[in-house]
Amino acid sequence: MTTQQLIEEIKRKNSFLCVGLDVDLTKIPAFLLEEEDPIFSFNKAIIDATHDLAVAYKPNIAFFEAYGLKGWESLKKTIAYIKEQYPTLYTIADAKRGDIGNTASMYAKAFFEDMAFDSVTVAPYMGKDSVEPFLAFENKHTILLALTSNEGAFDFQTQLIDGEPLYKKVIRTSQQYKNAENLMYVVGATKAEYFKDIRQVAPTSFLLVPGVGAQGGSLQDVCQYGLAENVGLLINSSRGIIYASNQADFATRAREEALKMQQEMQEILKNRL
Amino acid sequence: MTTQQLIEEIKRKNSFLCVGLDVDLTKIPAFLLEEEDPIFSFNKAIIDATHDLAVAYKPNIAFFEAYGLKGWESLKKTIAYIKEQYPTLYTIADAKRGDIGNTASMYAKAFFEDMAFDSVTVAPYMGKDSVEPFLAFENKHTILLALTSNEGAFDFQTQLIDGEPLYKKVIRTSQQYKNAENLMYVVGATKAEYFKDIRQVAPTSFLLVPGVGAQGGSLQDVCQYGLAENVGLLINSSRGIIYASNQADFATRAREEALKMQQEMQEILKNRL
Repeated sequence: MTTQQLIEEIKRKNSFLCVGLDVDLTKIPAFLLEEEDPIFSFNKAIIDATHDLAVAYKPNIAFFEAYGLKGWESLKKTIAYIKEQYPTLYTIADAKRGDIGNTASMYAKAFFEDMAFDSVTVAPYMGKDSVEPFLAFENKHTILLALTSNEGAFDFQTQLIDGEPLYKKVIRTSQQYKNAENLMYVVGATKAEYFKDIRQVAPTSFLLVPGVGAQGGSLQDVCQYGLAENVGLLINSSRGIIYASNQADFATRAREEALKMQQEMQEILKNRL
Repeated sequence: MTTQQLIEEIKRKNSFLCVGLDVDLTKIPAFLLEEEDPIFSFNKAIIDATHDLAVAYKPNIAFFEAYGLKGWESLKKTIAYIKEQYPTLYTIADAKRGDIGNTASMYAKAFFEDMAFDSVTVAPYMGKDSVEPFLAFENKHTILLALTSNEGAFDFQTQLIDGEPLYKKVIRTSQQYKNAENLMYVVGATKAEYFKDIRQVAPTSFLLVPGVGAQGGSLQDVCQYGLAENVGLLINSSRGIIYASNQADFATRAREEALKMQQEMQEILKNRL
Protein backbone atom coordinates (compact mmCIF):
# COMPACT_ATOMS: atom_id res chain seq x y z
CA MET A 1 0.00 0.00 0.00
CA THR A 2 1.25 3.51 -0.76
CA THR A 3 1.40 6.29 1.82
CA GLN A 4 -1.22 8.13 -0.20
CA GLN A 5 -3.62 5.20 0.01
CA LEU A 6 -3.15 5.09 3.77
CA ILE A 7 -3.91 8.81 4.02
CA GLU A 8 -7.07 8.34 1.96
CA GLU A 9 -8.20 5.55 4.25
CA ILE A 10 -7.60 7.80 7.27
CA LYS A 11 -9.65 10.62 5.75
CA ARG A 12 -12.42 8.30 4.68
CA LYS A 13 -12.80 6.80 8.16
CA ASN A 14 -11.89 9.90 10.18
CA SER A 15 -9.60 7.61 12.12
CA PHE A 16 -5.90 6.95 12.53
CA LEU A 17 -6.41 4.04 14.90
CA CYS A 18 -4.22 0.95 14.76
CA VAL A 19 -5.36 -2.13 16.65
CA GLY A 20 -2.53 -4.18 18.13
CA LEU A 21 -3.12 -7.93 17.97
CA ASP A 22 -1.10 -9.14 20.98
CA VAL A 23 -3.01 -12.38 21.26
CA ASP A 24 -2.41 -14.36 24.43
CA LEU A 25 -4.34 -17.61 24.89
CA THR A 26 -4.53 -16.99 28.64
CA LYS A 27 -6.39 -13.71 28.09
CA ILE A 28 -8.92 -14.45 25.36
CA PRO A 29 -12.44 -15.68 26.22
CA ALA A 30 -12.19 -19.27 27.41
CA PHE A 31 -14.94 -20.56 25.12
CA LEU A 32 -12.75 -19.73 22.08
CA LEU A 33 -10.21 -22.33 23.17
CA GLU A 34 -12.56 -25.00 21.89
CA GLU A 35 -12.32 -23.66 18.33
CA GLU A 36 -9.92 -25.27 15.88
CA ASP A 37 -7.74 -22.16 15.68
CA PRO A 38 -8.54 -19.99 18.73
CA ILE A 39 -6.04 -17.25 17.81
CA PHE A 40 -7.45 -16.81 14.32
CA SER A 41 -11.06 -16.97 15.61
CA PHE A 42 -10.26 -14.25 18.14
CA ASN A 43 -8.52 -12.05 15.56
CA LYS A 44 -11.33 -12.50 13.04
CA ALA A 45 -13.97 -11.48 15.59
CA ILE A 46 -11.95 -8.40 16.65
CA ILE A 47 -11.28 -7.37 13.04
CA ASP A 48 -14.91 -7.88 11.97
CA ALA A 49 -16.07 -5.78 14.94
CA THR A 50 -13.65 -2.88 14.41
CA HIS A 51 -12.66 -2.79 10.72
CA ASP A 52 -14.67 0.36 9.97
CA LEU A 53 -13.20 2.24 12.95
CA ALA A 54 -9.54 1.36 12.55
CA VAL A 55 -7.20 1.87 9.59
CA ALA A 56 -4.46 -0.54 10.60
CA TYR A 57 -3.85 -3.83 12.41
CA LYS A 58 -0.55 -4.72 14.03
CA PRO A 59 0.06 -8.35 15.01
CA ASN A 60 2.87 -8.65 17.54
CA ILE A 61 4.90 -11.39 15.90
CA ALA A 62 6.38 -12.74 19.13
CA PHE A 63 2.96 -13.71 20.41
CA PHE A 64 2.39 -15.85 17.33
CA GLU A 65 5.91 -17.31 17.31
CA ALA A 66 5.39 -18.37 20.92
CA TYR A 67 2.81 -20.89 19.72
CA GLY A 68 5.23 -22.40 17.22
CA LEU A 69 4.01 -23.75 13.90
CA LYS A 70 0.35 -23.30 14.87
CA GLY A 71 1.05 -19.66 15.71
CA TRP A 72 2.58 -19.02 12.27
CA GLU A 73 -0.48 -20.59 10.64
CA SER A 74 -2.79 -18.32 12.67
CA LEU A 75 -0.74 -15.28 11.66
CA LYS A 76 -0.85 -16.19 7.97
CA LYS A 77 -4.60 -16.77 8.12
CA THR A 78 -5.13 -13.45 9.91
CA ILE A 79 -3.27 -11.44 7.30
CA ALA A 80 -4.87 -13.31 4.42
CA TYR A 81 -8.29 -12.65 5.98
CA ILE A 82 -7.63 -8.91 6.24
CA LYS A 83 -6.34 -8.68 2.67
CA GLU A 84 -9.32 -10.60 1.34
CA GLN A 85 -12.15 -9.08 3.34
CA TYR A 86 -10.90 -5.54 3.95
CA PRO A 87 -8.26 -4.78 1.32
CA THR A 88 -7.99 -1.08 2.23
CA LEU A 89 -6.75 -1.89 5.73
CA TYR A 90 -3.05 -1.35 6.44
CA THR A 91 -1.06 -4.14 8.10
CA ILE A 92 2.02 -3.93 10.32
CA ALA A 93 4.24 -6.86 11.31
CA ASP A 94 5.54 -5.84 14.72
CA ALA A 95 8.68 -7.94 14.52
CA LYS A 96 11.39 -5.50 15.65
CA ARG A 97 13.94 -7.24 13.46
CA GLY A 98 17.48 -5.96 13.12
CA ASP A 99 20.08 -7.77 11.11
CA ILE A 100 22.24 -7.14 8.08
CA GLY A 101 22.42 -7.85 4.38
CA ASN A 102 21.20 -11.28 3.42
CA THR A 103 19.52 -11.90 6.75
CA ALA A 104 17.60 -8.62 6.60
CA SER A 105 16.51 -9.44 3.05
CA MET A 106 15.25 -12.83 4.19
CA TYR A 107 13.17 -11.25 6.95
CA ALA A 108 11.87 -8.62 4.52
CA LYS A 109 10.79 -11.28 2.02
CA ALA A 110 9.09 -13.32 4.73
CA PHE A 111 6.94 -10.42 5.89
CA PHE A 112 6.45 -8.44 2.67
CA GLU A 113 6.13 -11.26 0.15
CA ASP A 114 5.21 -14.54 1.84
CA MET A 115 2.72 -12.85 4.14
CA ALA A 116 2.00 -9.64 2.18
CA PHE A 117 2.28 -7.29 5.16
CA ASP A 118 2.34 -3.59 4.23
CA SER A 119 5.03 -2.78 6.78
CA VAL A 120 7.38 -4.20 9.38
CA THR A 121 9.00 -2.73 12.49
CA VAL A 122 12.82 -2.73 12.47
CA ALA A 123 15.42 -1.90 15.16
CA PRO A 124 17.98 0.75 14.13
CA TYR A 125 20.99 -0.24 16.27
CA MET A 126 22.95 -1.90 13.43
CA GLY A 127 22.49 1.09 11.11
CA LYS A 128 22.14 1.57 7.38
CA ASP A 129 22.87 -1.90 6.02
CA SER A 130 20.33 -3.41 8.43
CA VAL A 131 17.57 -1.04 7.28
CA GLU A 132 18.08 -0.56 3.53
CA PRO A 133 17.26 -4.18 2.61
CA PHE A 134 13.75 -3.53 3.97
CA LEU A 135 13.47 -0.12 2.28
CA ALA A 136 14.15 -1.70 -1.11
CA PHE A 137 10.59 -3.08 -1.34
CA GLU A 138 8.27 -0.87 -3.33
CA ASN A 139 5.01 0.29 -1.72
CA LYS A 140 6.04 -1.26 1.58
CA HIS A 141 7.00 0.68 4.70
CA THR A 142 9.80 0.12 7.18
CA ILE A 143 8.86 1.37 10.64
CA LEU A 144 12.07 2.14 12.51
CA LEU A 145 12.14 2.10 16.30
CA ALA A 146 13.01 5.64 17.35
CA LEU A 147 11.62 6.32 20.83
CA THR A 148 9.86 3.39 22.43
CA SER A 149 7.31 3.71 25.24
CA ASN A 150 9.01 1.47 27.80
CA GLU A 151 11.11 2.49 30.78
CA GLY A 152 14.31 1.18 29.17
CA ALA A 153 13.95 3.82 26.43
CA PHE A 154 15.85 6.16 28.73
CA ASP A 155 18.89 3.86 28.88
CA PHE A 156 20.10 4.78 25.39
CA GLN A 157 17.42 6.34 23.16
CA THR A 158 17.26 9.66 25.01
CA GLN A 159 21.02 9.95 25.57
CA LEU A 160 22.59 12.98 23.91
CA ILE A 161 24.96 12.79 20.94
CA ASP A 162 26.29 16.26 20.12
CA GLY A 163 23.38 17.76 22.03
CA GLU A 164 20.82 15.64 20.17
CA PRO A 165 19.06 12.60 21.65
CA LEU A 166 19.88 9.28 20.00
CA TYR A 167 16.27 8.76 18.84
CA LYS A 168 16.41 12.06 16.95
CA LYS A 169 19.73 11.13 15.43
CA VAL A 170 18.22 7.81 14.33
CA ILE A 171 15.45 9.72 12.54
CA ARG A 172 17.80 12.27 10.94
CA THR A 173 20.42 9.74 9.86
CA SER A 174 17.90 7.28 8.46
CA GLN A 175 16.44 9.95 6.22
CA GLN A 176 19.66 9.76 4.23
CA TYR A 177 19.18 6.04 3.57
CA LYS A 178 18.26 4.84 0.11
CA ASN A 179 14.46 4.82 -0.43
CA ALA A 180 13.98 6.77 2.83
CA GLU A 181 10.54 7.80 1.59
CA ASN A 182 9.43 4.32 2.71
CA LEU A 183 10.31 5.05 6.35
CA MET A 184 7.95 5.52 9.28
CA TYR A 185 8.98 5.68 12.95
CA VAL A 186 7.84 4.20 16.23
CA VAL A 187 7.47 7.00 18.79
CA GLY A 188 5.97 6.20 22.19
CA ALA A 189 3.38 8.48 23.75
CA THR A 190 5.21 8.78 27.07
CA LYS A 191 6.13 12.45 26.71
CA ALA A 192 4.11 14.52 24.26
CA GLU A 193 6.77 17.25 24.03
CA TYR A 194 9.09 14.79 22.30
CA PHE A 195 6.78 15.00 19.28
CA LYS A 196 7.57 18.69 18.83
CA ASP A 197 11.22 17.78 18.66
CA ILE A 198 10.59 14.95 16.22
CA ARG A 199 8.48 17.05 13.88
CA GLN A 200 11.53 19.32 13.42
CA VAL A 201 13.43 16.49 11.76
CA ALA A 202 10.52 14.50 10.33
CA PRO A 203 7.80 17.03 9.52
CA THR A 204 5.63 14.69 7.45
CA SER A 205 6.76 11.14 8.30
CA PHE A 206 4.16 8.78 9.66
CA LEU A 207 4.70 7.96 13.34
CA LEU A 208 3.37 4.76 14.86
CA VAL A 209 2.50 5.64 18.46
CA PRO A 210 2.16 2.99 21.17
CA GLY A 211 1.50 3.87 24.79
CA VAL A 212 -1.73 5.85 24.45
CA GLY A 213 -4.29 4.66 26.98
CA ALA A 214 -3.11 1.58 28.89
CA GLN A 215 0.46 2.93 29.14
CA GLY A 216 -0.70 6.42 30.18
CA GLY A 217 -0.15 8.80 27.23
CA SER A 218 -2.91 11.18 26.17
CA LEU A 219 -4.26 11.25 22.62
CA GLN A 220 -4.88 15.00 22.80
CA ASP A 221 -1.31 15.73 23.86
CA VAL A 222 0.20 13.50 21.20
CA CYS A 223 -1.93 15.12 18.49
CA GLN A 224 -1.17 18.65 19.70
CA TYR A 225 2.50 18.19 18.86
CA GLY A 226 2.51 15.21 16.53
CA LEU A 227 -0.23 15.81 13.98
CA ALA A 228 1.12 16.70 10.53
CA GLU A 229 -0.54 18.10 7.45
CA ASN A 230 -1.10 14.60 6.09
CA VAL A 231 -2.14 13.45 9.62
CA GLY A 232 1.12 11.49 9.91
CA LEU A 233 0.06 9.50 12.97
CA LEU A 234 -1.07 5.95 13.60
CA ILE A 235 -2.14 5.56 17.22
CA ASN A 236 -1.88 2.00 18.43
CA SER A 237 -4.05 0.46 21.09
CA SER A 238 -3.74 -3.22 21.95
CA ARG A 239 -4.95 -4.42 25.35
CA GLY A 240 -7.39 -1.50 25.82
CA ILE A 241 -9.38 -2.74 22.84
CA ILE A 242 -8.82 -6.46 22.40
CA TYR A 243 -9.11 -7.32 26.10
CA ALA A 244 -11.94 -4.91 26.97
CA SER A 245 -13.83 -8.04 27.99
CA ASN A 246 -12.95 -11.74 28.19
CA GLN A 247 -16.56 -12.82 28.07
CA ALA A 248 -18.95 -13.60 25.22
CA ASP A 249 -19.30 -9.85 24.58
CA PHE A 250 -15.56 -9.37 23.88
CA ALA A 251 -16.06 -8.26 20.26
CA THR A 252 -18.88 -5.82 21.10
CA ARG A 253 -16.82 -4.37 23.94
CA ALA A 254 -13.78 -4.09 21.65
CA ARG A 255 -15.93 -2.17 19.20
CA GLU A 256 -17.10 0.19 21.94
CA GLU A 257 -13.52 0.98 22.94
CA ALA A 258 -12.44 1.43 19.32
CA LEU A 259 -15.43 3.68 18.72
CA LYS A 260 -14.47 5.93 21.65
CA MET A 261 -11.02 6.38 20.15
CA GLN A 262 -12.34 6.90 16.62
CA GLN A 263 -14.77 9.57 17.84
CA GLU A 264 -12.02 11.38 19.71
CA MET A 265 -9.89 11.23 16.56
CA GLN A 266 -12.73 12.51 14.38
CA GLU A 267 -13.12 15.51 16.72
CA ILE A 268 -9.39 16.21 16.58
CA LEU A 269 -9.28 15.98 12.78
CA LYS A 270 -12.30 18.28 12.47
CA ASN A 271 -10.65 20.95 14.64
CA ARG A 272 -7.20 20.69 13.13
CA LEU A 273 -7.41 19.97 9.47
CA MET B 1 25.87 -24.20 30.66
CA THR B 2 27.82 -22.12 33.19
CA THR B 3 30.59 -19.72 32.20
CA GLN B 4 33.02 -21.94 34.11
CA GLN B 5 32.02 -25.00 32.04
CA LEU B 6 32.59 -23.01 28.85
CA ILE B 7 36.05 -21.98 30.07
CA GLU B 8 36.89 -25.60 30.85
CA GLU B 9 35.84 -26.64 27.35
CA ILE B 10 38.06 -23.91 25.87
CA LYS B 11 41.06 -25.06 27.91
CA ARG B 12 40.45 -28.72 27.15
CA LYS B 13 40.32 -28.10 23.38
CA ASN B 14 42.78 -25.21 23.22
CA SER B 15 40.19 -23.47 21.10
CA PHE B 16 37.74 -20.59 21.40
CA LEU B 17 36.28 -21.15 17.96
CA CYS B 18 32.57 -20.72 17.29
CA VAL B 19 31.20 -22.07 14.01
CA GLY B 20 28.36 -20.00 12.55
CA LEU B 21 25.64 -22.08 10.90
CA ASP B 22 24.32 -19.63 8.29
CA VAL B 23 22.84 -22.35 6.14
CA ASP B 24 21.70 -21.28 2.71
CA LEU B 25 20.28 -23.98 0.41
CA THR B 26 21.80 -22.22 -2.61
CA LYS B 27 25.31 -22.60 -1.18
CA ILE B 28 25.41 -26.12 0.22
CA PRO B 29 26.57 -29.04 -1.93
CA ALA B 30 23.83 -29.79 -4.47
CA PHE B 31 23.75 -33.53 -3.73
CA LEU B 32 22.47 -32.79 -0.21
CA LEU B 33 19.28 -31.32 -1.64
CA GLU B 34 18.11 -34.88 -2.28
CA GLU B 35 18.17 -35.69 1.43
CA GLU B 36 14.96 -35.53 3.45
CA ASP B 37 16.21 -32.59 5.53
CA PRO B 38 19.12 -30.99 3.64
CA ILE B 39 19.74 -28.28 6.26
CA PHE B 40 20.01 -30.77 9.09
CA SER B 41 22.16 -33.14 7.00
CA PHE B 42 24.52 -30.29 6.21
CA ASN B 43 24.71 -29.12 9.84
CA LYS B 44 25.24 -32.67 11.11
CA ALA B 45 28.12 -33.22 8.69
CA ILE B 46 29.75 -29.90 9.63
CA ILE B 47 29.34 -30.52 13.37
CA ASP B 48 30.65 -34.10 13.15
CA ALA B 49 33.68 -32.87 11.21
CA THR B 50 34.56 -29.98 13.54
CA HIS B 51 33.19 -30.77 17.03
CA ASP B 52 36.62 -31.42 18.54
CA LEU B 53 38.07 -28.16 17.14
CA ALA B 54 35.24 -25.77 18.04
CA VAL B 55 33.67 -25.00 21.40
CA ALA B 56 30.48 -23.35 20.16
CA TYR B 57 27.96 -23.42 17.31
CA LYS B 58 25.85 -20.43 16.36
CA PRO B 59 22.85 -20.99 14.08
CA ASN B 60 21.69 -17.75 12.46
CA ILE B 61 17.99 -17.99 13.20
CA ALA B 62 16.89 -15.92 10.19
CA PHE B 63 18.31 -18.50 7.79
CA PHE B 64 16.14 -21.19 9.38
CA GLU B 65 13.05 -18.99 9.64
CA ALA B 66 13.36 -18.23 5.95
CA TYR B 67 12.46 -21.87 5.24
CA GLY B 68 9.32 -21.64 7.34
CA LEU B 69 8.08 -24.62 9.32
CA LYS B 70 10.67 -26.94 7.76
CA GLY B 71 13.40 -24.53 8.82
CA TRP B 72 12.28 -24.57 12.44
CA GLU B 73 12.28 -28.36 12.39
CA SER B 74 15.84 -28.39 11.04
CA LEU B 75 16.91 -25.95 13.77
CA LYS B 76 15.35 -28.02 16.53
CA LYS B 77 16.96 -31.19 15.20
CA THR B 78 20.35 -29.47 14.95
CA ILE B 79 20.29 -28.30 18.57
CA ALA B 80 18.96 -31.62 19.83
CA TYR B 81 21.74 -33.40 17.91
CA ILE B 82 24.44 -31.22 19.47
CA LYS B 83 23.05 -31.66 23.00
CA GLU B 84 22.82 -35.41 22.56
CA GLN B 85 26.06 -36.19 20.77
CA TYR B 86 28.37 -33.46 22.09
CA PRO B 87 26.87 -32.20 25.36
CA THR B 88 29.91 -30.08 26.28
CA LEU B 89 29.46 -27.86 23.20
CA TYR B 90 28.06 -24.39 23.75
CA THR B 91 25.13 -23.20 21.61
CA ILE B 92 24.17 -19.68 20.56
CA ALA B 93 20.86 -18.67 18.98
CA ASP B 94 21.81 -15.71 16.80
CA ALA B 95 18.35 -14.13 16.85
CA LYS B 96 19.10 -10.47 17.64
CA ARG B 97 15.77 -10.12 19.41
CA GLY B 98 14.79 -6.88 21.14
CA ASP B 99 11.41 -6.45 22.72
CA ILE B 100 9.99 -5.81 26.17
CA GLY B 101 8.40 -7.60 29.09
CA ASN B 102 6.10 -10.39 28.12
CA THR B 103 7.34 -10.52 24.54
CA ALA B 104 10.97 -10.78 25.62
CA SER B 105 10.04 -13.54 28.06
CA MET B 106 8.30 -15.44 25.27
CA TYR B 107 11.38 -15.24 23.06
CA ALA B 108 13.59 -16.28 25.99
CA LYS B 109 11.44 -19.32 26.72
CA ALA B 110 11.40 -20.34 23.06
CA PHE B 111 15.20 -20.36 22.79
CA PHE B 112 16.27 -21.36 26.31
CA GLU B 113 13.56 -23.88 27.17
CA ASP B 114 11.84 -25.21 24.05
CA MET B 115 15.13 -25.49 22.17
CA ALA B 116 17.61 -25.61 25.08
CA PHE B 117 20.06 -23.13 23.61
CA ASP B 118 22.77 -21.97 26.04
CA SER B 119 22.57 -18.37 24.88
CA VAL B 120 20.80 -15.92 22.60
CA THR B 121 21.86 -12.64 20.96
CA VAL B 122 19.78 -9.60 21.93
CA ALA B 123 19.67 -6.00 20.62
CA PRO B 124 20.13 -3.32 23.32
CA TYR B 125 18.22 -0.38 21.78
CA MET B 126 15.12 -0.74 24.00
CA GLY B 127 17.17 -0.90 27.21
CA LYS B 128 16.85 -2.63 30.54
CA ASP B 129 13.32 -4.05 30.37
CA SER B 130 14.11 -5.64 27.00
CA VAL B 131 17.22 -7.39 28.34
CA GLU B 132 16.42 -8.44 31.92
CA PRO B 133 13.73 -10.98 30.91
CA PHE B 134 16.52 -12.91 29.15
CA LEU B 135 18.97 -12.49 32.02
CA ALA B 136 16.49 -14.08 34.43
CA PHE B 137 17.29 -17.59 33.14
CA GLU B 138 19.83 -19.44 35.26
CA ASN B 139 22.92 -20.86 33.56
CA LYS B 140 21.95 -19.21 30.27
CA HIS B 141 23.75 -16.27 28.67
CA THR B 142 22.38 -13.17 27.00
CA ILE B 143 24.76 -11.89 24.32
CA LEU B 144 24.09 -8.19 23.85
CA LEU B 145 24.96 -6.50 20.55
CA ALA B 146 27.58 -3.88 21.42
CA LEU B 147 29.74 -3.20 18.38
CA THR B 148 28.74 -5.10 15.27
CA SER B 149 31.09 -5.77 12.35
CA ASN B 150 28.98 -4.22 9.58
CA GLU B 151 29.40 -0.81 8.00
CA GLY B 152 26.20 0.50 9.60
CA ALA B 153 27.83 0.10 13.03
CA PHE B 154 29.25 3.59 12.54
CA ASP B 155 25.78 5.15 12.17
CA PHE B 156 24.98 4.95 15.88
CA GLN B 157 27.14 2.48 17.81
CA THR B 158 30.35 4.52 17.63
CA GLN B 159 28.67 7.90 18.22
CA LEU B 160 29.83 9.66 21.36
CA ILE B 161 27.63 10.18 24.43
CA ASP B 162 29.48 12.32 27.01
CA GLY B 163 32.72 11.43 25.27
CA GLU B 164 32.00 7.71 25.30
CA PRO B 165 30.89 5.69 22.26
CA LEU B 166 27.37 4.26 22.45
CA TYR B 167 28.66 0.66 22.31
CA LYS B 168 30.75 1.30 25.42
CA LYS B 169 27.81 2.91 27.17
CA VAL B 170 25.71 -0.15 26.29
CA ILE B 171 28.30 -2.36 27.98
CA ARG B 172 28.66 -0.14 31.06
CA THR B 173 24.93 0.44 31.54
CA SER B 174 24.00 -3.20 31.04
CA GLN B 175 26.39 -4.27 33.79
CA GLN B 176 23.97 -2.62 36.24
CA TYR B 177 21.10 -4.82 35.05
CA LYS B 178 19.78 -7.59 37.29
CA ASN B 179 21.70 -10.87 36.78
CA ALA B 180 24.32 -9.03 34.72
CA GLU B 181 26.74 -11.89 35.39
CA ASN B 182 24.84 -13.71 32.61
CA LEU B 183 25.85 -11.12 30.00
CA MET B 184 28.23 -11.52 27.08
CA TYR B 185 28.72 -9.03 24.24
CA VAL B 186 28.97 -9.09 20.45
CA VAL B 187 32.04 -7.12 19.39
CA GLY B 188 33.05 -7.15 15.73
CA ALA B 189 36.68 -7.60 14.71
CA THR B 190 36.74 -4.57 12.44
CA LYS B 191 39.08 -2.51 14.61
CA ALA B 192 41.24 -4.35 17.10
CA GLU B 193 41.92 -1.20 19.16
CA TYR B 194 38.27 -1.11 20.17
CA PHE B 195 38.95 -4.20 22.27
CA LYS B 196 41.38 -2.25 24.47
CA ASP B 197 38.60 0.22 25.17
CA ILE B 198 36.06 -2.52 25.86
CA ARG B 199 38.33 -4.38 28.26
CA GLN B 200 38.37 -1.23 30.43
CA VAL B 201 34.65 -1.57 31.10
CA ALA B 202 34.27 -5.34 30.74
CA PRO B 203 37.59 -6.83 31.85
CA THR B 204 36.40 -10.43 32.10
CA SER B 205 33.15 -10.61 30.08
CA PHE B 206 33.02 -13.06 27.21
CA LEU B 207 32.96 -11.34 23.82
CA LEU B 208 31.51 -13.05 20.76
CA VAL B 209 33.57 -11.81 17.84
CA PRO B 210 32.29 -11.96 14.25
CA GLY B 211 34.25 -10.55 11.34
CA VAL B 212 37.52 -12.47 11.67
CA GLY B 213 38.57 -13.88 8.33
CA ALA B 214 35.94 -13.34 5.65
CA GLN B 215 35.14 -9.85 6.91
CA GLY B 216 38.81 -8.91 7.26
CA GLY B 217 39.68 -8.81 10.98
CA SER B 218 42.86 -10.48 12.23
CA LEU B 219 42.76 -13.10 14.97
CA GLN B 220 46.16 -11.98 16.29
CA ASP B 221 45.05 -8.35 16.60
CA VAL B 222 41.79 -9.22 18.32
CA CYS B 223 43.59 -11.46 20.81
CA GLN B 224 46.30 -8.89 21.51
CA TYR B 225 43.74 -6.51 22.97
CA GLY B 226 40.76 -8.73 23.69
CA LEU B 227 42.12 -11.81 25.45
CA ALA B 228 41.23 -11.88 29.16
CA GLU B 229 42.53 -14.00 32.01
CA ASN B 230 39.65 -16.46 31.51
CA VAL B 231 40.19 -16.23 27.72
CA GLY B 232 36.88 -14.29 27.42
CA LEU B 233 36.63 -14.60 23.64
CA LEU B 234 34.57 -16.68 21.25
CA ILE B 235 35.73 -16.10 17.69
CA ASN B 236 33.04 -16.81 15.17
CA SER B 237 33.64 -18.01 11.64
CA SER B 238 30.74 -18.89 9.38
CA ARG B 239 31.27 -18.85 5.60
CA GLY B 240 35.05 -19.39 5.87
CA ILE B 241 34.43 -22.80 7.40
CA ILE B 242 31.03 -24.08 6.29
CA TYR B 243 31.41 -23.03 2.66
CA ALA B 244 35.09 -23.92 2.25
CA SER B 245 33.86 -26.27 -0.49
CA ASN B 246 30.47 -26.98 -2.03
CA GLN B 247 31.54 -30.38 -3.32
CA ALA B 248 31.52 -33.85 -1.79
CA ASP B 249 34.56 -32.89 0.30
CA PHE B 250 32.75 -30.01 2.06
CA ALA B 251 33.00 -31.52 5.54
CA THR B 252 36.69 -32.41 5.17
CA ARG B 253 37.44 -28.93 3.87
CA ALA B 254 35.43 -27.38 6.73
CA ARG B 255 37.54 -29.40 9.15
CA GLU B 256 40.76 -28.18 7.53
CA GLU B 257 39.67 -24.55 7.90
CA ALA B 258 38.56 -25.09 11.49
CA LEU B 259 41.85 -26.84 12.24
CA LYS B 260 43.85 -23.87 10.94
CA MET B 261 41.96 -21.57 13.29
CA GLN B 262 42.21 -23.95 16.23
CA GLN B 263 45.98 -24.28 15.73
CA GLU B 264 46.40 -20.52 15.60
CA MET B 265 44.33 -20.26 18.79
CA GLN B 266 46.36 -22.97 20.51
CA GLU B 267 49.54 -21.05 19.69
CA ILE B 268 48.06 -17.83 21.07
CA LEU B 269 46.88 -19.50 24.27
CA LYS B 270 50.30 -21.12 24.78
CA ASN B 271 52.08 -17.78 24.48
CA ARG B 272 49.63 -15.77 26.54
CA LEU B 273 48.27 -17.84 29.39
